[in-house]
Amino acid sequence: MPDPVLLVLDAAPSPRLGRLTGRVDVRHADASSLAGLLPAADVLLVWDLASDAVRKAWPGPGSRPRWVHTASAGVDRVLCPELVASDTVLTNARGVFERPVAECVAGLVLAFATHLPGVLECRRERRPHDREGQRVAGSRALVVGAGPIGREITRLLHGLGLTVALVGRTARRTIHGVADLDRLAARADWVIAAVPLTESTRGMFDTRFFGLLQPSARFIDAGRAATVVEADLVDALNRRWLAGAALSTFQEETPGPGSPLWDTPGLVLTPHLGGNTAGWRDRLGERFVAMYEQWSRGLPLPNTVDKSLGYVPSTDLFEDDTTR
Amino acid sequence: MPDPVLLVLDAAPSPRLGRLTGRVDVRHADASSLAGLLPAADVLLVWDLASDAVRKAWPGPGSRPRWVHTASAGVDRVLCPELVASDTVLTNARGVFERPVAECVAGLVLAFATHLPGVLECRRERRPHDREGQRVAGSRALVVGAGPIGREITRLLHGLGLTVALVGRTARRTIHGVADLDRLAARADWVIAAVPLTESTRGMFDTRFFGLLQPSARFIDAGRAATVVEADLVDALNRRWLAGAALSTFQEETPGPGSPLWDTPGLVLTPHLGGNTAGWRDRLGERFVAMYEQWSRGLPLPNTVDKSLGYVPSTDLFEDDTTR
Repeated sequence: MPDPVLLVLDAAPSPRLGRLTGRVDVRHADASSLAGLLPAADVLLVWDLASDAVRKAWPGPGSRPRWVHTASAGVDRVLCPELVASDTVLTNARGVFERPVAECVAGLVLAFATHLPGVLECRRERRPHDREGQRVAGSRALVVGAGPIGREITRLLHGLGLTVALVGRTARRTIHGVADLDRLAARADWVIAAVPLTESTRGMFDTRFFGLLQPSARFIDAGRAATVVEADLVDALNRRWLAGAALSTFQEETPGPGSPLWDTPGLVLTPHLGGNTAGWRDRLGERFVAMYEQWSRGLPLPNTVDKSLGYVPSTDLFEDDTTR
Repeated sequence: MPDPVLLVLDAAPSPRLGRLTGRVDVRHADASSLAGLLPAADVLLVWDLASDAVRKAWPGPGSRPRWVHTASAGVDRVLCPELVASDTVLTNARGVFERPVAECVAGLVLAFATHLPGVLECRRERRPHDREGQRVAGSRALVVGAGPIGREITRLLHGLGLTVALVGRTARRTIHGVADLDRLAARADWVIAAVPLTESTRGMFDTRFFGLLQPSARFIDAGRAATVVEADLVDALNRRWLAGAALSTFQEETPGPGSPLWDTPGLVLTPHLGGNTAGWRDRLGERFVAMYEQWSRGLPLPNTVDKSLGYVPSTDLFEDDTTR
């Protein structure tokens, strides 16, 4: 029996899959060759986090991989109706990005509180900065999105002494339901968005939402670009409806020099928030190899996406401690 | 009997001492009038954190305040041989600055780890930043100085998942002695200085010390300027002996536009680290009023400085929770 075919949709450098050598027929695809190589693949590893290639190559009849793994937390770039309707199992990279993303968010909260952007701006002008900062302990944070990333952000901010409210799709134990969102947003010093991109979250952070915020509030997007209406955020910042914001993903993959984002007051752009922390390729590779061992023995895979929801439901999550 | 005379060495705006109205004869001094007003004062409140006026006005014979309170953690700017030799009690502002300073330090650690200075520099050039960041959880911090500020920094960094070693003047329980300093410095990712300025700490962070550090290490001074040999730090950063540093107090009170500090690679200047967090005047004023109540009833004062050591010894510290 031939080795299973593992097709890797690549961004250089390649992941370390050394332990699979000799047991797996590893082939590499790029966006243009993917459609041709897909029918022969047993497993597809989507390494290129920013690619729409799978959604474009998948449609149509024919043989398809039985398992697709994405090296990202969000799967919206991969999901297409044909993949949703298929028997193919889709898994994501839970356990790799939670802590780095939470550290970036905590860093942004502290940086905003201590006016670090202003301090660094003054440095350029060779003059000291003397605006009063604020204590973060005792301030109020609202985390929107109760998935692994939102929960890790909640843990870290709570550890810094903030009062944190967490909003999920449905209320449960310590998690508020969406019905509480507006009320909590209106009194938050910090609003952190960490929601997956689905039809119900697309554009949820818009003019209506930003109009609820306190003028002193800051908004940090730790989720997917399309959950935020970028033009509405730019407008709200220009009108001083809120005091600052940080975006890590954008409508354009890379904002060009002419983008209005660069000139918006109080807006910090932090590309790949937490997603390019040193060593992430190794951790993703190790994770995939461990999952491959389970798959090859016919065991159920952890971190399996509910394709109709568009994310891994909480009850299916590995409740391990690897993200701490 | 006349009301006690409280002399306030002022920086505008004045502290809120409302509850003392009608019970205390409050007078205000500046650097030039202090020497003349000092003999008639029962209590001196040194509100101007940056002033050397007390050290200049105090010397010589005559009547002197029985109690001097500084609205700062460090007392080196106040101490003179005549004050040390006198019966006057000296107290400091423990309990006000610990948490804001610790939050600033944590913010700087996370900002360095996520390359926030580079991100903001790129923003100015309208291009995205894509250097890999690093996780802070699991990295090693060395906190030098086991006073209230050093211990609060230790608590907060520990809460962020760092492995923290704390060095004090003498080893005790979880605190390393000075004999361990070099060994711990050589393996630290983060070195945070939080030592009072005394004859044994003056200039302790010098070329010899910076030469011990890893090239990837960052140095953050959360203590007094004169514990760091500024020229040695600038030189070490220029030679890339370490990857970055943050200073909050300087040899010059305010570095002028010609200062080499502005051009030093990886150096962030954060004036008044944590010492000008919104509301600090109110908190300092409330603290002083509470201490005044104790003093006026003849009770011993908390946070009394050992004038021969130059700081409040640990065993004399209020072990309250007000800094959390």
